Order: sequence, then structure tokens, then C-alpha cells
Amino acid sequence: MSDTSPSAGAPVPPIDAAAQSSDPSEQGDANAAGVIDLLGAIGYNLLSGFTRIVADSELAPTLGVRSQMVTLARAELANYDRVVARLEELGTRPEEAMDPFVAAVDAFHARTRPSTFLEGIVKVYVGDGIANDFYREVSAFVDPATRELVEGVETGEEFAAFVVRTVREATKADPRVGGPLALYGRRLVGEALSQGQAVAVERDALAALLVDNPASDLLEIGRMFGRLTEAHTRRMGALGLAH
Amino acid sequence: MSDTSPSAGAPVPPIDAAAQSSDPSEQGDANAAGVIDLLGAIGYNLLSGFTRIVADSELAPTLGVRSQMVTLARAELANYDRVVARLEELGTRPEEAMDPFVAAVDAFHARTRPSTFLEGIVKVYVGDGIANDFYREVSAFVDPATRELVEGVETGEEFAAFVVRTVREATKADPRVGGPLALYGRRLVGEALSQGQAVAVERDALAALLVDNPASDLLEIGRMFGRLTEAHTRRMGALGLAH
Repeated sequence: MSDTSPSAGAPVPPIDAAAQSSDPSEQGDANAAGVIDLLGAIGYNLLSGFTRIVADSELAPTLGVRSQMVTLARAELANYDRVVARLEELGTRPEEAMDPFVAAVDAFHARTRPSTFLEGIVKVYVGDGIANDFYREVSAFVDPATRELVEGVETGEEFAAFVVRTVREATKADPRVGGPLALYGRRLVGEALSQGQAVAVERDALAALLVDNPASDLLEIGRMFGRLTEAHTRRMGALGLAH
Repeated sequence: MSDTSPSAGAPVPPIDAAAQSSDPSEQGDANAAGVIDLLGAIGYNLLSGFTRIVADSELAPTLGVRSQMVTLARAELANYDRVVARLEELGTRPEEAMDPFVAAVDAFHARTRPSTFLEGIVKVYVGDGIANDFYREVSAFVDPATRELVEGVETGEEFAAFVVRTVREATKADPRVGGPLALYGRRLVGEALSQGQAVAVERDALAALLVDNPASDLLEIGRMFGRLTEAHTRRMGALGLAH
């Protein structure tokens, strides 16, 4: 990677080279392992997000809507490809990096399988929303190349607008759908947090990215969870659903 | 499209311009409607093939195999995009062209849902095989631009080799899996033919492509079904399964 080499005018790396390097291993083995865990978790989350969106697209009421869901799935797959490429660049087999996260992510999906089209799109909106917020938070603690990648894997702004419009129209047409959807939204966050916690307990390196980082502390982690929760509350509000 | 224009040396279209034109409407309204039906059927078949392969990829035993299935799904989606582009080029809304085939294709998938990973890959191999053979046969009766597209939507030669290897290894390891897989293969053809027949009865324009075409006759259609059946038998043989 060209941005790992010192520039021609500065053959000696500057003192803060580690923080600026795009090679996480220069920031210590623990950080390197944490970055690979983070990319593995994001990668498998994108792969199964892609898979579930495609499978749930069969619930779409029209081919036009189904095609919008496929467009979103393409974006998730393109992001997955970028994460896989970065893992390979770091000398890791992508499957090995993703394997430790299969159980938790699969459990999340198994426990939140949507039974209606509306649940399907609320799941994408709420689930991708929390995931994207979390990635943006964690990216503060990783090397710049990984950070740029992680910050770029956000998908679905257009789709989010579609979800908001569709759910608001549906609850206006039949106010009774609002309650079960709000309940489903709460279940999504609950399962996401519970699986996230299970991962944090098992994957020390990933947890250390947050906990042992000089730029981070427990207070800051508390604040982060506060921000994630607030953003989720705003999203449920945008849908017109109780949270 | 450049190949619709007469070449610089021949400003006047030759007498057989209709047969050479890439615009099916110049071959008569019936043929044009048949071509749109054909593209609609292929398009929806590719979209739901893509969807089912992605959903069934969750049955894969490892992330590596799952990734191979996703690669195949990408190829189906790329072909779907080409069919959609061609339908738009012909001035048709792709959703409208595909709509008449949703029921039959969905019924095929609902009745052949694989319950194991092996069934999943046999379904892709056998189902795509029959579909590709049929497209190649029908493409003889359509305008050259459509023909080129239809002949190009074949996917999965590499994947076919993987299926053959995997099924042979599985039946070698446990000969008892062969019987149910062979039965499943027969069910796949039966359902494909029965849904194909339902479509032919309902879609006059599509059926007319074969039946009313001067290049075709009933005897030739009989031969075509013979060729499709032989090719299917060869594929089951390649898997080492009774047919």
C-alpha cells in the first residue's frame, strides 16, 4: 500500500507513525488482532445481511419493491467484498477472520426472522442503523486505512427513506400494525445487544480495541452506548413507532 | 445498437433485414410479444434463481463453499441485469414483462425447496442445466440481439464441476444419500416441465415462438424435448445418480 511508505521528503518515519500507519500490526499485536476481529465481524455481518435481505425480498409486495431490496443487497455485498479484500491485504484468510462471529450473527438472525414484509424492512433499517453507528464509533480506534474502510460500509440511505415512508403509510392505513412493529423493533435491539455482548466476552482482542485503547475509557464506552441508544430511539421515532 | 444499422457499404437494408434486425417488432407483433415473454420468463427465472441460491447458501457446510455459492449468485444477478436492460431497450417495463411468470416460477421453487445442502446444489446444477438448454433451443427463433443475450446467460460451469465432485464424494462416503438425491432430481425435472407447460398454455405469444415459427414445427419441438431430456440424463449420470 502506497500510504504505508514514508513520503520521499521524510525517509525517517515521524514519531506518530504508528497512529498514522495503515498497517495495524505497527500498532502492536493486540491492536492488529482487534482490527482483524473487527473486520471479520463486519465482514460476516455484511455477508449474512446480504443473504437475509435477498431471502426476505421474497416478502416484497411487488417486483418493484423487491428490486429495491436487491439494490440494497448489492451494496451490502460490495461492502463485503471490500472488507474481504482488506483482510487479504492484511495477510489473513477472510473465512478464518469471520468464523468466530458466525454463531452470534446467525443466532441474531434466527431470533429475529421477520414474519411480514414490514418487519423485514424495519429489521434492515434498525439493524443496519445500529451496526453502522457502532462501526463509526469503533473506527475511531483503528488504523486510518481500516477506519476509512469501516466508515465507508454504510449502506441504504435511499432505502431508509423508503422504509420510513412505507411504515408510516402502513400504520396510517391501519394503526393496529404499529404496536407489533414497535415490539419487533425492541426485540431487534435487545438481540443485537445480547449477541454483541456475547461476542465481546469471547473475543478479547475485539473488546480490547475499545477498553484498552488510550483514546478510550470506561466512561467513553458508556457515552458510546448512550449515543447508540439515542440514535436507535431517533430511528424508531422517524418510523412513528414507540420505542 | 450498432448492429442494427446497415454497414456503410450497404445503405439499403438487404431483403432479409427482418431476420437480421435486432428489433423483434420488425419480425411482426406476435414475434415481438413472444420475445418480451421469453425475456420476462428468463428475467424472473434469473431473479428467483439468484434469490434461492443466496438463501440456500446458508445450508453450506463452510464459509468457503458458501462464498462459492455467492459467486454463482452474482453471475445470475449480472445476467438478470442484462435481461432487464434488454427489456428496457425494447421499450418494456421489466416488472410488467416478468409479472406473468412469477406464479409458475414461485410454484416451482416452493415445491422443490431443498432440505439439505446436497439437494440445494443438485437443484442449482439440474435446474440451471435444463433452463440453459431450453434458452439455447428457443434462441434459434428470436432476433440476433436477443439470441446473443439469451445464449450468454449461461452460468456456473465452474460451479457444475464443484457440484459433480461434491455429490460423488458424498455418495461414495455414504451410498444411502444417492437414492433420495436421485428422487429429488426426478422431482426437479417433473416440476420444471409441469410449470413450463402451465406457462406455455397461458402465454400464447411465448408458445407461438416455438409452434408458429417457420423454422420450427411439431416434429422439431418433439426433438427439442428429446434433446432436453437427454441432456438432463447426462447430467444425472455425471452426478452418479440414477435418473
